[in-house]
Amino acid sequence: MKTKIIDPTQSAYNYPLLLKRLLLSGGRYEPNREIVYRDQTRYNYATLKERICRLANLLVKAGVKPGDAVGVLEWDSHRYLECMFAIPMIGAIIHTVNVRLSPDQVLYTMSHADDTLVLVNDEFLPIIEGIHDQLKTVTNYVLLSDNKNAAVPDKLPFLGEYEQLLAEADSHYDFPDFDENSVATTFYTTGTTGNPKGVYFTHRQLVLHSLVIAQALGTLSGHDLMKSSDVYMPITPMFHVHGWGVPYAATMLGAKQVYPGRYEPEMLLKLYMTEKVSFSHCVPTIMFMIVQAAKANNIKFDNWKVLIGGSALPKGLAVAAREVGIHLNGAYGMSETCPLLAVAYLNDELQALNPDEQLNYRIKTGIPSALVDLEVMDENGKLLPHDGKSVGEIVCRTPWLTQGYFKEPEKSEDLWQGGWLHTGDMATIDQLGFVQICDRMKDIIKTGGEWISSLDLENLLSQHSAIAEAAVVGIPDNRWGERPFAMLVIEKDQTATAETIKQHLQKYVDTGEINKWAIPDRIEFVEAIPKTSVGKIDKKKIRADIE
Amino acid sequence: MKTKIIDPTQSAYNYPLLLKRLLLSGGRYEPNREIVYRDQTRYNYATLKERICRLANLLVKAGVKPGDAVGVLEWDSHRYLECMFAIPMIGAIIHTVNVRLSPDQVLYTMSHADDTLVLVNDEFLPIIEGIHDQLKTVTNYVLLSDNKNAAVPDKLPFLGEYEQLLAEADSHYDFPDFDENSVATTFYTTGTTGNPKGVYFTHRQLVLHSLVIAQALGTLSGHDLMKSSDVYMPITPMFHVHGWGVPYAATMLGAKQVYPGRYEPEMLLKLYMTEKVSFSHCVPTIMFMIVQAAKANNIKFDNWKVLIGGSALPKGLAVAAREVGIHLNGAYGMSETCPLLAVAYLNDELQALNPDEQLNYRIKTGIPSALVDLEVMDENGKLLPHDGKSVGEIVCRTPWLTQGYFKEPEKSEDLWQGGWLHTGDMATIDQLGFVQICDRMKDIIKTGGEWISSLDLENLLSQHSAIAEAAVVGIPDNRWGERPFAMLVIEKDQTATAETIKQHLQKYVDTGEINKWAIPDRIEFVEAIPKTSVGKIDKKKIRADIE
Repeated sequence: MKTKIIDPTQSAYNYPLLLKRLLLSGGRYEPNREIVYRDQTRYNYATLKERICRLANLLVKAGVKPGDAVGVLEWDSHRYLECMFAIPMIGAIIHTVNVRLSPDQVLYTMSHADDTLVLVNDEFLPIIEGIHDQLKTVTNYVLLSDNKNAAVPDKLPFLGEYEQLLAEADSHYDFPDFDENSVATTFYTTGTTGNPKGVYFTHRQLVLHSLVIAQALGTLSGHDLMKSSDVYMPITPMFHVHGWGVPYAATMLGAKQVYPGRYEPEMLLKLYMTEKVSFSHCVPTIMFMIVQAAKANNIKFDNWKVLIGGSALPKGLAVAAREVGIHLNGAYGMSETCPLLAVAYLNDELQALNPDEQLNYRIKTGIPSALVDLEVMDENGKLLPHDGKSVGEIVCRTPWLTQGYFKEPEKSEDLWQGGWLHTGDMATIDQLGFVQICDRMKDIIKTGGEWISSLDLENLLSQHSAIAEAAVVGIPDNRWGERPFAMLVIEKDQTATAETIKQHLQKYVDTGEINKWAIPDRIEFVEAIPKTSVGKIDKKKIRADIE
Repeated sequence: MKTKIIDPTQSAYNYPLLLKRLLLSGGRYEPNREIVYRDQTRYNYATLKERICRLANLLVKAGVKPGDAVGVLEWDSHRYLECMFAIPMIGAIIHTVNVRLSPDQVLYTMSHADDTLVLVNDEFLPIIEGIHDQLKTVTNYVLLSDNKNAAVPDKLPFLGEYEQLLAEADSHYDFPDFDENSVATTFYTTGTTGNPKGVYFTHRQLVLHSLVIAQALGTLSGHDLMKSSDVYMPITPMFHVHGWGVPYAATMLGAKQVYPGRYEPEMLLKLYMTEKVSFSHCVPTIMFMIVQAAKANNIKFDNWKVLIGGSALPKGLAVAAREVGIHLNGAYGMSETCPLLAVAYLNDELQALNPDEQLNYRIKTGIPSALVDLEVMDENGKLLPHDGKSVGEIVCRTPWLTQGYFKEPEKSEDLWQGGWLHTGDMATIDQLGFVQICDRMKDIIKTGGEWISSLDLENLLSQHSAIAEAAVVGIPDNRWGERPFAMLVIEKDQTATAETIKQHLQKYVDTGEINKWAIPDRIEFVEAIPKTSVGKIDKKKIRADIE
């Protein structure tokens, strides 16, 4: 054949992969399925599309141009979903601002991303009022509020209140085609040192990610985490890696979607019951809170399916969740990866195991999803065997990885070495293909020339009946280099001492699961473990507080 | 953001959408699921991958270069599946030769596609022996046979027998990355006039098509046509639009796959039972044969899910299939479209209907799948409203349409007008989004200034208890321009006359479903209705035989 390679952009049949395709698909299948916001707002997919058209007209009238960044400071809502489509669909870039950062960091990220228009929930007005004078690129604001008659602050250049502006805007918009490699989204990830770093994703990346999310959650046997008929409620903030990309996939499928605003346990439980929520996703610490609340209030769930990511899923938590009717599956990804890389998927043989044995696989980091290349690599850049023993850094290639850190060429080079994205996670891959994270590279504890996984220790500690939550870090030690330190939260009505905890760990030394030097010298009992802005255990803070 | 558009091909993170990704994904999930060929061969996904590596080494050793076309003449088999991956994965193009064409047409297509190496099932050796002298581009052959000790013909340049050559080849192959817009597959579609026309599809197109096939068949609610846990057996030849693309999607999912070779009713039924087949797809005429065979042998199926495409699905057939335990869903596509465009999908409201009412929607042409733009257009290029009444030609845009007819610039221009692929099918789209084909443009009957749909008439005729199969065409008429002519196959043990048939149709005139001029003047009873090489009713032949 002469025409071996086709240039699709040069042809009448050019059909770029754009986010608008996902929106059109869902509404076509299930025009009457609902988008629900707390106990305040509900509307169907036809209205979602109309509101997105109105928002597009609002944005264009406000002067937003293709390539401009539009900042959003908001809790999880139907408004956020509308922004996630309308802003990229006119060719602009949505900057999902992390509202849990300090005002200084919010200022840094909004300036760094060159935000022009900013949509802000009235709850975050104090932040904006404090930094507005230093926000050189921002020209206008739109107020997001649950109160339709909210007063628009007159000190700042506000165009008006969202609902009123939508009502005034035209309900039709002809969304254009453009290059699928145009950037659609950006947000900032906080590292252990230095300023937050901006990652960014294109339309093509988000469309491919949505197609594979739908497959990974929907068509793999024996799991059925999220199908079109499920009712989806995120419990991972939408500003955090696009709510793990699930709002885009759920919209493509035409699934019912429930947005809970700020995460308050009562509202989450109420929405679970009134809206018949069947699928959610969150980090372990949030699941821990939900399980505690359910136990305290004697609540049983009806097989609520929840995907756990962001940190390793401790077995103790998976067991406790099962007792209250929540079915957990591990998953893996990070801000730099859009995020989906792997889901704990049980094949035919593993599904034949008893539920307890199955749980050992459900809590694993997962099996790489379709279109994902994932390997473990040693410090010399050699790929390691899939033997369940060789520990190396997880490196990956997929079509949906950030192509660098925005305006940070050096850090981008560190992220991408030899054509692989380097995750900074240490892991093994076993013969079945299961990835198992041992630790973050920076969290692994080096003691007397040996490596101890802080995650392994946390997992074993979590299986002690008195322990509600555990964090382990390495602390400097003159003799051994580092020694493990454990910070524990004890269940109400339970007691434990450093001695009983050490005895619990000794059992695992006896069975050979850990070495004796893995038992922490220091154990501290606390009311709560420090968390980062996205709800992960803040090991940087724990280490800093000790020293 | 400065970096608005990213050129992924210029970067370390370039990750083209290639068919090898689908193969790697399935084997990762379910290494022990089987690929089965008749009652002869079975192996798992790990072996599939190894055999594809061996085949790649065989191809390269035989001199196949990127861009070369490799012809395959074969019934549905594990060997065909291996070719569908290995040939494109080395950058070459698989030409799936339509073995039901006449030897002259086979010669035309193989010469036109510039086939170099040809893999041929021993059943088709007589064709090849007859045309070899005229096949100027073919350099070598490989023999495909169910008999491992098959004698390789010594008159033609045969490299050897497939299994023996695979056994000699190295079991490792490092499949390269290359441009995702490289052509991967080609085959020929037979029109009503002139030579067969070559269509072609790229790696990118086939990967996107597979992702959407998996979603359309797997995650949409209440249907679950094919999930990873299903057992898949095609009953549409693999040479016909890649077996509708389902072998690629099934491999990506890691589903068990059963290949029946040539379609013999006894073998199909045996494989259904021994392998526990749960999902298949075929054209109405094949389903008609299966239902007849089941009725004759008193066989009941256990909710066998079958997708019907290629021609409209008559309600009478759907009812008859349901009676023997086969659950049918309509779908729509064609050779030029890879093929998926639409699947009859029942939303929440339609699923609440009783089974009989549901059937009226299940037999529809379908709702366009994700990433598919589909409209009906009038003769002036105007898109028509979705009102269930306005009849126009179906035009579409999706990422997986053939970009023309190979070496046929004029016909390619006719296919692509104004940025839309023109299907030649006349249809309506209703308020629910259901597409309903009225007829092929060339089959619609124009009588006295009115249009009669031959498909509508066939559908109503199929609901007469004595009618097993019906075909309707327009025949020239001096007074009215054209008049409908019906050709009917009567069920065994049943009788009918032209008069009773006309009375049957008169009922639909009375209820307003058709106009009285739609009742055919001429009705002919036959043993069998002429079929094309892919099993569709051959209206061209019916018309020619009448005249």
